Amino acid sequence: MPLRTAEILAVGSELLTRFRQDTNSLFLAGRLDEAGIDLRWKTIVGDRRPDLVAAVQHARSRVDLVVTTGGLGPTADDLTREAVAEVLALPLEEDSAVMSAIRARFEARRIPMPDLNRRQALVPRGATVLPNPRGTAPGLWIESGGTIVVLLPGPPRELEPMFDDHVAPRLRARSGGRQVRRRVIKTTGRSESAIDEVAEPVYSEWTGSVSVPIDTTILAAPGLIELHLSARGDDVAALDQALGDGVRRLADALGSAVVSIDGRSLEAVVGDALRARAFRIAVAESCTGGLLLGRLTEVPGSSAWVNGGVVAYADAVKIDQLGVDAQLLSAHGAVSEPAAQAMAHGVRARLHAQVGVAITGIAGPDGGTALKPVGTVVVAAVTPNADVVRTFLFPGDRRMVRLQSVNAALNMVRTALA
Amino acid sequence: MPLRTAEILAVGSELLTRFRQDTNSLFLAGRLDEAGIDLRWKTIVGDRRPDLVAAVQHARSRVDLVVTTGGLGPTADDLTREAVAEVLALPLEEDSAVMSAIRARFEARRIPMPDLNRRQALVPRGATVLPNPRGTAPGLWIESGGTIVVLLPGPPRELEPMFDDHVAPRLRARSGGRQVRRRVIKTTGRSESAIDEVAEPVYSEWTGSVSVPIDTTILAAPGLIELHLSARGDDVAALDQALGDGVRRLADALGSAVVSIDGRSLEAVVGDALRARAFRIAVAESCTGGLLLGRLTEVPGSSAWVNGGVVAYADAVKIDQLGVDAQLLSAHGAVSEPAAQAMAHGVRARLHAQVGVAITGIAGPDGGTALKPVGTVVVAAVTPNADVVRTFLFPGDRRMVRLQSVNAALNMVRTALA
Repeated sequence: MPLRTAEILAVGSELLTRFRQDTNSLFLAGRLDEAGIDLRWKTIVGDRRPDLVAAVQHARSRVDLVVTTGGLGPTADDLTREAVAEVLALPLEEDSAVMSAIRARFEARRIPMPDLNRRQALVPRGATVLPNPRGTAPGLWIESGGTIVVLLPGPPRELEPMFDDHVAPRLRARSGGRQVRRRVIKTTGRSESAIDEVAEPVYSEWTGSVSVPIDTTILAAPGLIELHLSARGDDVAALDQALGDGVRRLADALGSAVVSIDGRSLEAVVGDALRARAFRIAVAESCTGGLLLGRLTEVPGSSAWVNGGVVAYADAVKIDQLGVDAQLLSAHGAVSEPAAQAMAHGVRARLHAQVGVAITGIAGPDGGTALKPVGTVVVAAVTPNADVVRTFLFPGDRRMVRLQSVNAALNMVRTALA
Repeated sequence: MPLRTAEILAVGSELLTRFRQDTNSLFLAGRLDEAGIDLRWKTIVGDRRPDLVAAVQHARSRVDLVVTTGGLGPTADDLTREAVAEVLALPLEEDSAVMSAIRARFEARRIPMPDLNRRQALVPRGATVLPNPRGTAPGLWIESGGTIVVLLPGPPRELEPMFDDHVAPRLRARSGGRQVRRRVIKTTGRSESAIDEVAEPVYSEWTGSVSVPIDTTILAAPGLIELHLSARGDDVAALDQALGDGVRRLADALGSAVVSIDGRSLEAVVGDALRARAFRIAVAESCTGGLLLGRLTEVPGSSAWVNGGVVAYADAVKIDQLGVDAQLLSAHGAVSEPAAQAMAHGVRARLHAQVGVAITGIAGPDGGTALKPVGTVVVAAVTPNADVVRTFLFPGDRRMVRLQSVNAALNMVRTALA
């Protein structure tokens, strides 16, 4: 039976409040797309049994594959298992292997198993149990009357590996060889429309002429623009070749705006450039208050190339910890190119790094002046071969200004190392 | 006709990809809740007309109020207007006032109006037009056969003011004075189940005995648990009184775990405590690499109480910038209580602050040992009156460990200042 269409059924009353949103469906949408399955509906339903039964019935009537998320917990409002069994008219039976696994989990944590958790060992007759090494609720794969219903637990850290380990292989086995291949080009330092203007002629060049059609999507975040390319078909080598050509042409056209064509983040690219030169980096931050350091140290293994940094909110810290001249600060102000350069040089020298970078600016909401409005941010970067400084004026609120500042600083280090 | 139940229908094929999510429904869920209307379903459907027609039909059959978002643009894949008119069997007629408004928008921008935009002036017979000062697509309010169908544009900056200006007043007019009031208790330092265990007896005490029933929801993030209380009714004073009582009883029972009962974040509470004592804070971070500083400086006005900090990833930075004794580091290791205390004292002295806080730990994925596994984190806090240090073992991946570390450090500062 070929699987063409799917519906995601996200279960949980909290998903119908202002506080919580179903986010698993973004992960699942990507994975279904990779399996060549067309996601046609997402339905979000609360923990009321009649609603849940109606939702499962309805989903089954209109797609080939129904994927439910959530509602597999041990408490009375976890009803997905029961609702699916009711719709498919399958009796629920305690599965002894599942029961043992649940008991073992509690024993390992030296906690007595609450009797409630027995419910999680109930399995509709004929269902395949999908193991959950990270939680007590196993997943279920049920084929019935021409439809497949897959029940997954709600927590992403349980759902995601379960999908990849146990659902994706089963979907691939039914896809009839059709595959989706993807590439991503990450860029920074240019606006979405500037990127689009450069990319558009490349797109139109390859549409029409090529044998493998490539879909493109542009995704914009403050200071980071991504181009996603995808191609579908049976011949993986041909897909990869077409995508490789497309990526090469676009990257040529976009030039230095391209951060990576292999999925690496901007901070990982900076880290790799530092590592390749056996350089270490030190950071001085004012208005971004540690966010640049936070981004750099998000990269696993960053201790190999980050020495650390100084967050100098108060001027006294800029003077004492970074050796910035007090007279320079009073002459030019803390948000100035001389101040940023002195901070970058200071942190580089004091923290014994080859590369120093500094951010100083006015993130708002207060502190702006006519000459230096909110959004004014100065970034300086110093390497053994470069000493650069630049003043930006970023739009948006405090959060947006800080985010753009961090991306701009990372990009200045990237280009200074290039 | 009383409106009790609602469904949100989010329209757009992009909402079925991995890249985009319907976010309007969070805004709408809050607003519907405030109007005393029970949101029972969210359905996300693509730009295929038969699917859209089926979704509108289905929604109409099960709720009193259907709110659609998106699909009101001028292009061929914007089909919400047509699908709703088809389901309700209402002819679409060009509305001359809407047509003039659209023409005026284009004239103001000195752009010729594309003929396509005429579609946006089509109105199902009998519908009320909801003006859209921020875009070309007006909203529509349609009452038909016992159901209300409201069509809203997709962009949040158009949808949100349209809802507040034109939909909310109409909903209030039908709610018969029923209102919802809310309070939130933020806690930290205890698990969800520990909070639940304390809160449960308080809930059962007030259910049954009180005249105003209070709904409670528990929301958990790593290291932060929130209790949301809400009450519905006609008499706002009675609702507020009941909620005030409930909050007081719960806060008494939860004691020092309570961070705030007025919506303030943990970092804002720490900031207010510092400001009240005219203290300033300095931060030394290792494994969290600037995230604690980032959180503190997210608070607008934090420059009044943050001096700054040192991110000491490399041991040399701990020694040079924080004055940590090299022999102490080699004797106890960088992840140890003596090291954390030395870092906190060092950053406090060198950055001239009254309060010093330090985090050192192993966030993973590498670096763990048998004695100090990944997740081992030591936090030290020093104030003029307190000198505390604590070793934690946090579960989860690098991101989770770092997040819990920051929350734990904020909480240690909060309690040290109490």
